[in-house]
Amino acid sequence: MPNFDDDGGDRKLCIIVSKGTMEWATAAMVLGNAAIGEGIDLHVFFTFWGMDAIIDRRMDKLKVSPVANPSMKIPGTDIGMANMLAGLPGMTAFASSMMHKEMKALDVPPHREFMQMVADAGAHFWACRLTYDMLGLKKEDLWDEVDDVISASDFMELSDGAQIIFI
Amino acid sequence: MPNFDDDGGDRKLCIIVSKGTMEWATAAMVLGNAAIGEGIDLHVFFTFWGMDAIIDRRMDKLKVSPVANPSMKIPGTDIGMANMLAGLPGMTAFASSMMHKEMKALDVPPHREFMQMVADAGAHFWACRLTYDMLGLKKEDLWDEVDDVISASDFMELSDGAQIIFI
Amino acid sequence: MPNFDDDGGDRKLCIIVSKGTMEWATAAMVLGNAAIGEGIDLHVFFTFWGMDAIIDRRMDKLKVSPVANPSMKIPGTDIGMANMLAGLPGMTAFASSMMHKEMKALDVPPHREFMQMVADAGAHFWACRLTYDMLGLKKEDLWDEVDDVISASDFMELSDGAQIIFI
Repeated sequence: MPNFDDDGGDRKLCIIVSKGTMEWATAAMVLGNAAIGEGIDLHVFFTFWGMDAIIDRRMDKLKVSPVANPSMKIPGTDIGMANMLAGLPGMTAFASSMMHKEMKALDVPPHREFMQMVADAGAHFWACRLTYDMLGLKKEDLWDEVDDVISASDFMELSDGAQIIFI
Repeated sequence: MPNFDDDGGDRKLCIIVSKGTMEWATAAMVLGNAAIGEGIDLHVFFTFWGMDAIIDRRMDKLKVSPVANPSMKIPGTDIGMANMLAGLPGMTAFASSMMHKEMKALDVPPHREFMQMVADAGAHFWACRLTYDMLGLKKEDLWDEVDDVISASDFMELSDGAQIIFI
Repeated sequence: MPNFDDDGGDRKLCIIVSKGTMEWATAAMVLGNAAIGEGIDLHVFFTFWGMDAIIDRRMDKLKVSPVANPSMKIPGTDIGMANMLAGLPGMTAFASSMMHKEMKALDVPPHREFMQMVADAGAHFWACRLTYDMLGLKKEDLWDEVDDVISASDFMELSDGAQIIFI
């Protein structure tokens, strides 16, 4: 089992990423990047659908989904994309590329680059063993910067004394 | 940057509202209201889709979405609204007005009124700067009771020593 | 009001289950089971859609929903189930039975059995009063192992000093 000794900081944050869409991967990195900038020990644990965010061949293709999200508006309006419209072929890709542009305009890096930035700043990235086994993954399927594949029990040891955010 | 000094309490709760639908805005206020009733310092941070809950012109029109939620049942039955049915035009509005009625019957105030009640009891409300910039908002677009627009780094300082609930 | 005295452990985890689909009920039990295995006091609070996971006549029929989840792939591929395809009648049942098989292959017990295992190991299960009233439930509608129906204020007392995970 990996060594979960603290990096010396007094405050520790564990973010569990359980969803693999662009907005939640970004939310995790925005919060994580802020945490590490404040000198907080950061551990990010990827599980369930969140695994997509660290599967090498998938992590550059994260999508945002407009279906079932009444908060997603038709651009420039307060009108929600109706579920029927949002479900049309092409709308997921459209919404994803729109969000990409908006983030770029605000200097939010693309997912892989953002993750690398946070990794370089000292964050730790962990993959959930159960999901890893369920998807039949191999080490080479994962992004290079992933520290290790760990169990939920390992995560409990890791998160001792930490604040936990489940995204 | 705003002053995040404690209000004197020993326990602090930070709720991150990342979704803008009626059920999650309500969940945040039910938990927040309970917290403040127990004398806990309460800070609510609105980010991503959750911004809808504090955009003045949107906050009275939050919707609940029946699509992609197999837990939402056809009223009075154990039969889930099938995805096809739930996606039909009008179903989101129908589900929303149904939930409105159910909450009213249990004396859960409408969203704006509930937020006001919790604000009057001493809660703090914060808007996420990144989302604010992404949506091109101005101060006058936000609900009056919002304390300020703060960055994710500010949130990290604010949540030092707090319990964090990410909704 | 129930007695929330600690069981003697130094660390306490409160999991709020707010969604009633198979993947989130499972996520709660995977984390909860790991916590209790590490000697952590575990309290699970079921609220909003999460109530389905402890309603006796519903808990054996939890579904996973493929709609609005771009991370759900067509089996054996990296191709997301398009929203149109995922919304077709039968796809929710198909995705659910698929996930059932995958979990069985990894010795993850079915939901009720998993909950029983965690209950037998000493976990506490609580139902949210507001949701209970909203759904017009009676005690006999709930799973036998539910400790009690408690308010959000009770939950705040219960979670004093705990780590909180909102699923």
